Amino acid sequence: MAGSYIPVPAREARAVRIDAGGRFRVVDVEGGQVVDLFAFSARDVEEYASAEHTRVAIDRLFPRPGQMFWTNHRRPILRFEQDRSPGVHDMLCAACDPSRYAALGVEGWHGSCQENLQLAMGGLGFGPVHTPQPINLFMDVRVEPDGALSWGPAPTAAGDHVILQAEMGCVVVASACPQDLNEINRFNPTPVGIELLGDGG
Amino acid sequence: MAGSYIPVPAREARAVRIDAGGRFRVVDVEGGQVVDLFAFSARDVEEYASAEHTRVAIDRLFPRPGQMFWTNHRRPILRFEQDRSPGVHDMLCAACDPSRYAALGVEGWHGSCQENLQLAMGGLGFGPVHTPQPINLFMDVRVEPDGALSWGPAPTAAGDHVILQAEMGCVVVASACPQDLNEINRFNPTPVGIELLGDGG
Repeated sequence: MAGSYIPVPAREARAVRIDAGGRFRVVDVEGGQVVDLFAFSARDVEEYASAEHTRVAIDRLFPRPGQMFWTNHRRPILRFEQDRSPGVHDMLCAACDPSRYAALGVEGWHGSCQENLQLAMGGLGFGPVHTPQPINLFMDVRVEPDGALSWGPAPTAAGDHVILQAEMGCVVVASACPQDLNEINRFNPTPVGIELLGDGG
Repeated sequence: MAGSYIPVPAREARAVRIDAGGRFRVVDVEGGQVVDLFAFSARDVEEYASAEHTRVAIDRLFPRPGQMFWTNHRRPILRFEQDRSPGVHDMLCAACDPSRYAALGVEGWHGSCQENLQLAMGGLGFGPVHTPQPINLFMDVRVEPDGALSWGPAPTAAGDHVILQAEMGCVVVASACPQDLNEINRFNPTPVGIELLGDGG
């Protein structure tokens, strides 16, 4: 698997199984694109990377490189190994879904990270899964001192990426967020990619 | 139902059905106590108050009085009517659970808000439910500019409370958090209460 590259077309997602110890890169191919990343235990998809458990484990809104993402069973699932991006990421905002686009005035179907997640997991044979709070790579959400949140466009350049390592056998889903009605993807969703790097040995 | 008072003993939880429009008070009886509050749609307990959907709806870490808590289906479920407390609340930290206490060195059983939630919902005839990120009333979690989180004791005095109004028929669970191994409850969990106030008309 090492060296495999899985392109993720704009507005779509791909799922991949990663063995414990396996490392992978998530790449923003053209820049300015948010990636909704999810990780489920391969043995039990009811165990998954959980923002609220990660925050308690590390006392931070988002891990620093070297720290872990933790599951809802309080076990490490992904190690945040390297950050080759401006270092702006979010774990506060829910995955976009049909009700989000309806509220934004969309009539009819609009792709969403929630649907992308379910389709990608279904493609690997998993039935509907809980949609966790995603790891929103490259998403710029700032917290003001009074608790207000402000949003900006993803500050990434073409080729910016993060490297993660699986701490348990897991299924990772990367969704190239199809949000085109606000500036988080600069109103122009673009592709991303998952590159499998082999284990850390 | 109006005027009913439901005592919640220290370290326990109680669940109560609230009709749409019903108002209730959550009281910190002795002060210095965190309440993990959950709200589920009475029609479908897979719809529940969701921190990550609330944040997106209101662009804040926590609602201000007058704002709503939103569900994972992006519908309002509770209106935050009044705050008669220091105004310090959290929606970043997961409910405590057996794995949390195990990680803190507890051997054997320790009560937790997760178990409390399941017991309280079971008492009303609901099977195991998803444990959402709670609305941690009176919990002091501060976000530093670099994303670090710091914790302090609940700053409430005896009798401090909030008033909420149900925006849909719901089941509300209030857990008097049994955390006694850090300072959030001043190392001394104490009782809380739910007072039903009738509708807003």
